[in-house]
Amino acid sequence: MPSRRERLFAALDRIGADAFVATQRPNQLYLLDHPDPSIVISRPNCNFILFTAKETIVFPGIWISNACRDLLPNGEVVTNQPGDPPAGVQLAARLKKMPLKKIAFDRLGPDLADLLNRETSGLQAVQDDIATEIRRTKDERDLKGMREAARVSDLGMLAAFRAIRPGVTNGDLAAEGAAAMLRAGAEHVIMHVMTGPGTFYLDSGEDARRTIQAGEMVFIDMGIAVHGYIGDQTRAGIVGEGTPQQRDLLRTVQNAYRLASQAMKPEASTTAIYQSVIDLYAQKGWAAYFCHHVSHGLGLGGDPPRIARDAPDDRLRAGDALSCEPGVYVPGLGGARVENMIYVSESGPEELTKCPLEPPMGF
Amino acid sequence: MPSRRERLFAALDRIGADAFVATQRPNQLYLLDHPDPSIVISRPNCNFILFTAKETIVFPGIWISNACRDLLPNGEVVTNQPGDPPAGVQLAARLKKMPLKKIAFDRLGPDLADLLNRETSGLQAVQDDIATEIRRTKDERDLKGMREAARVSDLGMLAAFRAIRPGVTNGDLAAEGAAAMLRAGAEHVIMHVMTGPGTFYLDSGEDARRTIQAGEMVFIDMGIAVHGYIGDQTRAGIVGEGTPQQRDLLRTVQNAYRLASQAMKPEASTTAIYQSVIDLYAQKGWAAYFCHHVSHGLGLGGDPPRIARDAPDDRLRAGDALSCEPGVYVPGLGGARVENMIYVSESGPEELTKCPLEPPMGF
Repeated sequence: MPSRRERLFAALDRIGADAFVATQRPNQLYLLDHPDPSIVISRPNCNFILFTAKETIVFPGIWISNACRDLLPNGEVVTNQPGDPPAGVQLAARLKKMPLKKIAFDRLGPDLADLLNRETSGLQAVQDDIATEIRRTKDERDLKGMREAARVSDLGMLAAFRAIRPGVTNGDLAAEGAAAMLRAGAEHVIMHVMTGPGTFYLDSGEDARRTIQAGEMVFIDMGIAVHGYIGDQTRAGIVGEGTPQQRDLLRTVQNAYRLASQAMKPEASTTAIYQSVIDLYAQKGWAAYFCHHVSHGLGLGGDPPRIARDAPDDRLRAGDALSCEPGVYVPGLGGARVENMIYVSESGPEELTKCPLEPPMGF
Repeated sequence: MPSRRERLFAALDRIGADAFVATQRPNQLYLLDHPDPSIVISRPNCNFILFTAKETIVFPGIWISNACRDLLPNGEVVTNQPGDPPAGVQLAARLKKMPLKKIAFDRLGPDLADLLNRETSGLQAVQDDIATEIRRTKDERDLKGMREAARVSDLGMLAAFRAIRPGVTNGDLAAEGAAAMLRAGAEHVIMHVMTGPGTFYLDSGEDARRTIQAGEMVFIDMGIAVHGYIGDQTRAGIVGEGTPQQRDLLRTVQNAYRLASQAMKPEASTTAIYQSVIDLYAQKGWAAYFCHHVSHGLGLGGDPPRIARDAPDDRLRAGDALSCEPGVYVPGLGGARVENMIYVSESGPEELTKCPLEPPMGF
């Protein structure tokens, strides 16, 4: 595969542009020539990185200016102190001196577009997020980053499940899972734990102080970052034997996961995958209770593809990476979700997350 | 102090409005009549809550619809399933049936304003975030919530500092701190650990995998939520004795903190407080290296007041709660910050966070 830089400039060529400005952290991390850009731009506070055929110029926000100056010794850094002109003015001043014709931004708001129009006559600035499209097809570095994020995510899920027993709180489980992942190298960790006797409230109705009772269902999701790469998985289980209805719910969700994930091959239709999950739940009368996406893209953030009710039809491609996370939330019964990180290779789906679908509990 | 509801309707009276729509989670948590709204609306995914003299009507997003239906049995909840009309359309349909004249929104975008204009003739909709202004002056419930968030924050900072010794990683400290706070009841925890031999990179240049060496400075910030209330503090220290320059840096920042926090009394000028910090650092030639705010408001989120270079002058009031966090980041030497949560009582500033300015390290 050509290098990231080669792919960027090939895409610029196709739209007749000679420079790219990355304003979004995932694009900045992807394109910056540094062994671990996630420790330089460790938060989304770098205003612009300008890539031309000859130069890379970094325009950090004030809060990141010291880090960029010290940690990027080989590139040009337009440092920033209190009282300096606004970022857009700094960018325009630099662009004025450069013989550029057309420049693509991943995001270009009306204020910055107006400013550039006024200040840099002859330069055409357009919004065209070619970098996010390039990021869709994963390279070796991506795959290494995603595998590491998946490994850390497995450690967290296993640690949280191991702590499940009646009498502990949701927060106790999150503490075990978060600590395991932070120790293993995650720079950012959110672990969501939901438990309850009946309906779970997907991404809502979470009470960290709630004490877990025997017979309840437990539901753990997370969002982590490791060297900038997203780690993400969800598991559901029953505290004890559970009722036949609870076991059936878990089994059904696991079946939906297997059905959808096994279909994640090159050329697969994303709407067909979505519909297969709906059809499976419809057999139980639960179609209306599957209320979210099947997949979001994985990588550095905001990557395509997305599989959801409101997403356009798309074909999966070799090199895609995406979540597979059918869930269902049945009033009066309960909710469950299974989520893994999937890499679409030429030969089919590979599960990057390796944690068992029902991780062992610690009692 | 009058009740939250009484204060809301008094403010509506002043602008001639008869209803309020809260779209922002902090306002929703503040105004919803529930013993712990943070476990119902546990993420910012509730579209609208409409408050009129007679009714409270909740319009949850799809993801929170089950939770609102089950956990808010006494209010009206307009539940949401896949395929239902967009939130704005649901709101307009409900408003049409109500005899309202003027309605204030905390946020009202142009699309929703246009929709309401078309669909609800005779109803005037305006953006006026009266709720955030009401939230500025803390009531007993706020004070209880902030004290608990501060207590949990102290536990986390003490746990992280106790784990500091050469050979552990930044992530190890974050793991100890995060786990302590999650076990103590925080529903959301981010702990930022920065270490280095020289300049620190405030909110950037963070490497979770970095191993701490003797003689380095360490710098820990956090952002947590407990029952929706923000907990926040920062501490800086030296791993070992440190150099005279490092000790001077720490002492200077602690002096800046004491100077600013002791000035946080009713009627104090916010620009005077900001300037006093600049003047203190200027004595060292460091004025340009204090690059951020002195204070942001505390409470449920987005509360005034703010003390910063770009914030307008304001007078502190009894009942304000705000951070006090002067820091300085000196090229070639290092960076440090001290931050506490301050409550401005009639008799002066009260530190809600109680952790020592230099917490004991565990070696």
